Amino acid sequence: MASSTISCNASDLIPLLSGGANATAAAAAAEFICSRFETVSGKFTDAGYAIDNTYLLFSAYLVFSMQLGFAMLCAGSVRAKNTMNIMLTNVIDAAAGGLFYYLFGFAFAYGAPSNGFIGKHFFGMSDFPKLTFDYPFFLYQWTFAIAAAGITSGSIAERTQFVAYLIYSSFLTGLVYPIVSHWFWSSDGWASPARSDNLLFHSGVIDFAGSGVVHMVGGIAGLWGALIEGPRIGRFEQRSKPLTLRGHSATLVVLGTFLLWFGWYGFNPGSFAIIFKSYGTSPGSSFYGQWSAVGRTAVTTTLAGCTAALTTLFGKRLIDGYWNVTDVCNGLLGGFAAITSGCSVVEPWAAVICGFIAAWVLMGFNKLADKLRFDDPLEAAQLHGGCGAWGIIFTGLFADKTYVSEIYGGDPNRPFGLFMGGGGRLLAAHVVQIVVIVGWVSVTMGTLFFVLHKMELLRIPSEDEVAGMDPTSHGGLAYMYTEEEIKNGIMVRGVGGEDDHVHGHVGVL
Amino acid sequence: MASSTISCNASDLIPLLSGGANATAAAAAAEFICSRFETVSGKFTDAGYAIDNTYLLFSAYLVFSMQLGFAMLCAGSVRAKNTMNIMLTNVIDAAAGGLFYYLFGFAFAYGAPSNGFIGKHFFGMSDFPKLTFDYPFFLYQWTFAIAAAGITSGSIAERTQFVAYLIYSSFLTGLVYPIVSHWFWSSDGWASPARSDNLLFHSGVIDFAGSGVVHMVGGIAGLWGALIEGPRIGRFEQRSKPLTLRGHSATLVVLGTFLLWFGWYGFNPGSFAIIFKSYGTSPGSSFYGQWSAVGRTAVTTTLAGCTAALTTLFGKRLIDGYWNVTDVCNGLLGGFAAITSGCSVVEPWAAVICGFIAAWVLMGFNKLADKLRFDDPLEAAQLHGGCGAWGIIFTGLFADKTYVSEIYGGDPNRPFGLFMGGGGRLLAAHVVQIVVIVGWVSVTMGTLFFVLHKMELLRIPSEDEVAGMDPTSHGGLAYMYTEEEIKNGIMVRGVGGEDDHVHGHVGVL
Amino acid sequence: MASSTISCNASDLIPLLSGGANATAAAAAAEFICSRFETVSGKFTDAGYAIDNTYLLFSAYLVFSMQLGFAMLCAGSVRAKNTMNIMLTNVIDAAAGGLFYYLFGFAFAYGAPSNGFIGKHFFGMSDFPKLTFDYPFFLYQWTFAIAAAGITSGSIAERTQFVAYLIYSSFLTGLVYPIVSHWFWSSDGWASPARSDNLLFHSGVIDFAGSGVVHMVGGIAGLWGALIEGPRIGRFEQRSKPLTLRGHSATLVVLGTFLLWFGWYGFNPGSFAIIFKSYGTSPGSSFYGQWSAVGRTAVTTTLAGCTAALTTLFGKRLIDGYWNVTDVCNGLLGGFAAITSGCSVVEPWAAVICGFIAAWVLMGFNKLADKLRFDDPLEAAQLHGGCGAWGIIFTGLFADKTYVSEIYGGDPNRPFGLFMGGGGRLLAAHVVQIVVIVGWVSVTMGTLFFVLHKMELLRIPSEDEVAGMDPTSHGGLAYMYTEEEIKNGIMVRGVGGEDDHVHGHVGVL
Repeated sequence: MASSTISCNASDLIPLLSGGANATAAAAAAEFICSRFETVSGKFTDAGYAIDNTYLLFSAYLVFSMQLGFAMLCAGSVRAKNTMNIMLTNVIDAAAGGLFYYLFGFAFAYGAPSNGFIGKHFFGMSDFPKLTFDYPFFLYQWTFAIAAAGITSGSIAERTQFVAYLIYSSFLTGLVYPIVSHWFWSSDGWASPARSDNLLFHSGVIDFAGSGVVHMVGGIAGLWGALIEGPRIGRFEQRSKPLTLRGHSATLVVLGTFLLWFGWYGFNPGSFAIIFKSYGTSPGSSFYGQWSAVGRTAVTTTLAGCTAALTTLFGKRLIDGYWNVTDVCNGLLGGFAAITSGCSVVEPWAAVICGFIAAWVLMGFNKLADKLRFDDPLEAAQLHGGCGAWGIIFTGLFADKTYVSEIYGGDPNRPFGLFMGGGGRLLAAHVVQIVVIVGWVSVTMGTLFFVLHKMELLRIPSEDEVAGMDPTSHGGLAYMYTEEEIKNGIMVRGVGGEDDHVHGHVGVL
Repeated sequence: MASSTISCNASDLIPLLSGGANATAAAAAAEFICSRFETVSGKFTDAGYAIDNTYLLFSAYLVFSMQLGFAMLCAGSVRAKNTMNIMLTNVIDAAAGGLFYYLFGFAFAYGAPSNGFIGKHFFGMSDFPKLTFDYPFFLYQWTFAIAAAGITSGSIAERTQFVAYLIYSSFLTGLVYPIVSHWFWSSDGWASPARSDNLLFHSGVIDFAGSGVVHMVGGIAGLWGALIEGPRIGRFEQRSKPLTLRGHSATLVVLGTFLLWFGWYGFNPGSFAIIFKSYGTSPGSSFYGQWSAVGRTAVTTTLAGCTAALTTLFGKRLIDGYWNVTDVCNGLLGGFAAITSGCSVVEPWAAVICGFIAAWVLMGFNKLADKLRFDDPLEAAQLHGGCGAWGIIFTGLFADKTYVSEIYGGDPNRPFGLFMGGGGRLLAAHVVQIVVIVGWVSVTMGTLFFVLHKMELLRIPSEDEVAGMDPTSHGGLAYMYTEEEIKNGIMVRGVGGEDDHVHGHVGVL
Repeated sequence: MASSTISCNASDLIPLLSGGANATAAAAAAEFICSRFETVSGKFTDAGYAIDNTYLLFSAYLVFSMQLGFAMLCAGSVRAKNTMNIMLTNVIDAAAGGLFYYLFGFAFAYGAPSNGFIGKHFFGMSDFPKLTFDYPFFLYQWTFAIAAAGITSGSIAERTQFVAYLIYSSFLTGLVYPIVSHWFWSSDGWASPARSDNLLFHSGVIDFAGSGVVHMVGGIAGLWGALIEGPRIGRFEQRSKPLTLRGHSATLVVLGTFLLWFGWYGFNPGSFAIIFKSYGTSPGSSFYGQWSAVGRTAVTTTLAGCTAALTTLFGKRLIDGYWNVTDVCNGLLGGFAAITSGCSVVEPWAAVICGFIAAWVLMGFNKLADKLRFDDPLEAAQLHGGCGAWGIIFTGLFADKTYVSEIYGGDPNRPFGLFMGGGGRLLAAHVVQIVVIVGWVSVTMGTLFFVLHKMELLRIPSEDEVAGMDPTSHGGLAYMYTEEEIKNGIMVRGVGGEDDHVHGHVGVL
């Protein structure tokens, strides 16, 4: 008689309770009361689904907005003649990623039970939803997959055939990235910190939101792409210094950077997937819970980025003699890429350290890239690869005992950060992570890029590169002004509010 | 003695329970226990309001961001000389829409009880909030109303008097659109699927987030506007082919498209209005609930758009010979406009079909428009009208029995998609929807545009059109560079990081 | 034996209830039942944290997006040669603000218990989280702090040394603003409406989301900066009329304005910090609760902005003779700045009045600024200072009795708006607020700007101002086109979809 209601009518309960020692009445009373508690318990379960999925869905939307951020950042960082091309790759990353992640990617990533290496269930979203995941989780993971592909597209910008983009992007989103995410994030991945047993070095890898899984994967893929293609024409042809081929709009760079910052609040704090979880000994016993951890993650993310931006500002001022805005933007993003691994398990002060070093890591790798004549128009390999790797190390050093335990549970004596007194096991696992990601992505994406190169599908002809990809492959430039607009002088006269024709008489958009 | 507390002090309850067969004590015990359950039940009600309104408000914010998306998409799609004009219309759509929807619109749309045709309560938000709606619901519906007006402004861009915009936008937001939304979305609208009786064809129309109510309304209004105004100067004056009057910035087009994509996650998944609702037989009995349906809606939306984008990419490559970015953007949006009707009641695989066909529908209507010398600068009539209509048909074909029943309830044997075995009634109702929307919008907006035309309030003089609307009506161009900037050569020298004056010496913004 | 579970097994409860008048059994039964109710109560507490923090975090993200809005609005409002500079200040506001607010700012603002003037606990986020605040609250407050700094940067744009920005921005975010927010928003601030006793004029100041605390602080700081620096070269040098130094991109202005609008939904409705709170006499007794108030706040915000925009549209049309888009944007923002104080405690119709007058306040102050030869490139002092002050007065006039009582509690007869029959005390408190903010910001920021001026750290050399700050301090212009791009003619030929070379043959980006 589980009546599935909380509503409690005293007149129904009275005769039951007034039965005294009557066993039948007592049983009915107990049933009456208990069934209501069961209903209450069920309502909390439902409320939890509603709250957690609201939180997860809106986090997914934020991460999706990073794709717009990438598009604008990339567009502003390339020359005008390649704007259409790079923006199209960002749109297609999302679109092709949507289909491929739906068909295969999610299955490879989260198709547990698996052999620990690759998932094998839920192709084409069959059997959705399950107790362990629901549609919002799919959406959230899709936004991560396309972010990885977006990173790579920056490294090989301004010189890559569009068809090569289509191939590597599908391969990366549909296979390479999902497998890596399976290793570290699926509950039965071989290096997952959430396995019930056989934890790697008794620890597993704590790559909370993906400095390795997303950023290094995208960055290392980009590294191979850019290396195999070689630098853009004009970049290293002077005998003296490398030539910065400045992007055509710093405004778009700043726009993209801020959008990425905005979206990172979905990327890092959203990676908890669940916000309605108490850390107290019993419900209501503590104001401290996963909601606090989510908030703390937003704070550490912010502080790492802010510190990296300021460090870059002053560092570049000392080095170059001026206040550089695009480098500050990249520094900021480097701080974010680094903190992404440990964001949930470190203290805010540690995030400041993380960001400070990330800025120098990026400046160092950029110097090195120039030395080695490696050309990555977006610094994506240096930023996402380099700062991502630093972030993985950082987590191995600074992960806090309490936070690791709250978030990952399991053995209360599980390893944590070396500098926090947690021994070297977590750090060792993290070194392994760096090695296997570099290895796996090199073998898969390196090979793919090499094959494309050999098939002459990778790089565009040099005359197209000089002319620009937009006029040669995309039907024209992104920007357009007609003869009449110039002839009629409407862009020439300085037109003002109350003061037409006072301004200078030459002006072009 | 309803004590309105959950806190339960055993020392209070003990004497009551130990009363044995004492009727008074038993009554007090029952009252004691039941009042707490009542309080618990009330707390769940409150929690539901908090959760659902959080979800609905943030969805409304997302839909609002589509207005920015429209502004950027439109700006990028017109020539530089008309940028101020089109952006102003987008700002004013939102602003005038705010006032008119507050004063009349909401009342016409949701002022139930009504005669089924037009609502008649809650003018000026009187009597807010009610059990059936609260302030967040108003905000959410307002964002929909201004979206409809935004669609139309694209169709008549680059040649319409600003005062005509003010008139049609107010009329559309305050009257035409609210009435249509009343028919299909208000609980007592004549074609609503949620009516308690007299369902149209025993089914009602399932236009979940408004392929018809929003997109077709905006698109058909645009169709009449563009038709009555005629094409822009230069568009069809060549004997041979129509001339594409390219927009001045594909970057803005991509920016706007991504923002619309972002906002669509508020538009479609947000249309549930409520997320805390179980589909299980009793609370907690299933992990599957409206939260899953909301997530599934986000997934179907994503897949339809992605498929349409990819289809357009390859379709246009075959037809035109290059990889077109702005057409891919439009294809993507066409996929979204189509899935908007059925997003909540179809399977992900069906969404792929929806998007695939939507892309061809858009390409077909664009071809037809060229044939008929119909000029719509944003393809808004083709996209929102054409793909919107396809989406309505699609829902009649592919709506899933279970999903329809979960979301719309009522008769468990209510009609669903023809291809899913649900008979033709839903499809028939949907054909009726298309017919009445075309009819109603043609009669109202067609007439309005015709009257404006006859009063010579619709189209700007041709010399203004050639010169551009910004210098003639809006005080100057959107972009401005002063003589000094050119003379001082700061835009001319290629300034770079470490390599000033290495770049070429001519460069204009 | 508090078993911390809701699960209720009837077989456990039966023997307890069937004990009849047995005192021990009754005690066990009571304990059994009550412990479950306690657990339920605790679960609601946890659910509240999860819901409220979700709502607060996403509100914080929205407010953060305003920083991007400021960056784009500012960039578009300055001349091209100063774009890098102004965008860098916006990035650095956020970054430096992050560090300083973490180290000191939050402690000064919310470090209660305090002396009522300045907080003194929680430096460097020590002791986080507490019962009264959690990490999301810190994040939310940080986004407010950087908004204040962002306002000021607009006033002194195009002529200020970058090092001066760094100094004032840190000082403002780390000290000046936090202290003001302590006065009005910390529970023991001397003018807080939430103090338990000694309310200022028995009322305290109701500056809900900060027309005074944020907007006037930023605006008055900007006023002093702009006053001490003097106008930009060329602004007032004509004998006749002042010269509008038009910004270089209205598109960016509109983009920024819409982003600010979007973000304002975090700023105002988010300021409740808590959404799961019933206003009914007992849980579930009313559908009206804080969720309604949050929604109403979103509506009043919207209506004030919309009305101000429309008023400006028609007002400027009458005055200047054309439909001005950038002035409409500023009018809209003026309406938002004004409603920010009273948004939660006024009726929607009152918000319409608020916006209507805000538009005229802004137009009036702009006229006055021209008269006094005061040059503020973003109108920030007029908009945030002027409309902010109007908003504070407005709240003193129109605050609704019920809403004030629901939101601020305390004495049921506490003062409310003068025009609503609430007497003059609230208004008097609000006049005090305006006076002390003007005084405090003048003393601190005025002095700072004056000292910087005397040390010759404030204004850039006039030759740099003429040449632009980007080439002289930031390594080059924000926009870049290479010689080849011009020479190859790719920007010159009008390239179109199917109609290459049909367009005119001159075209520059």
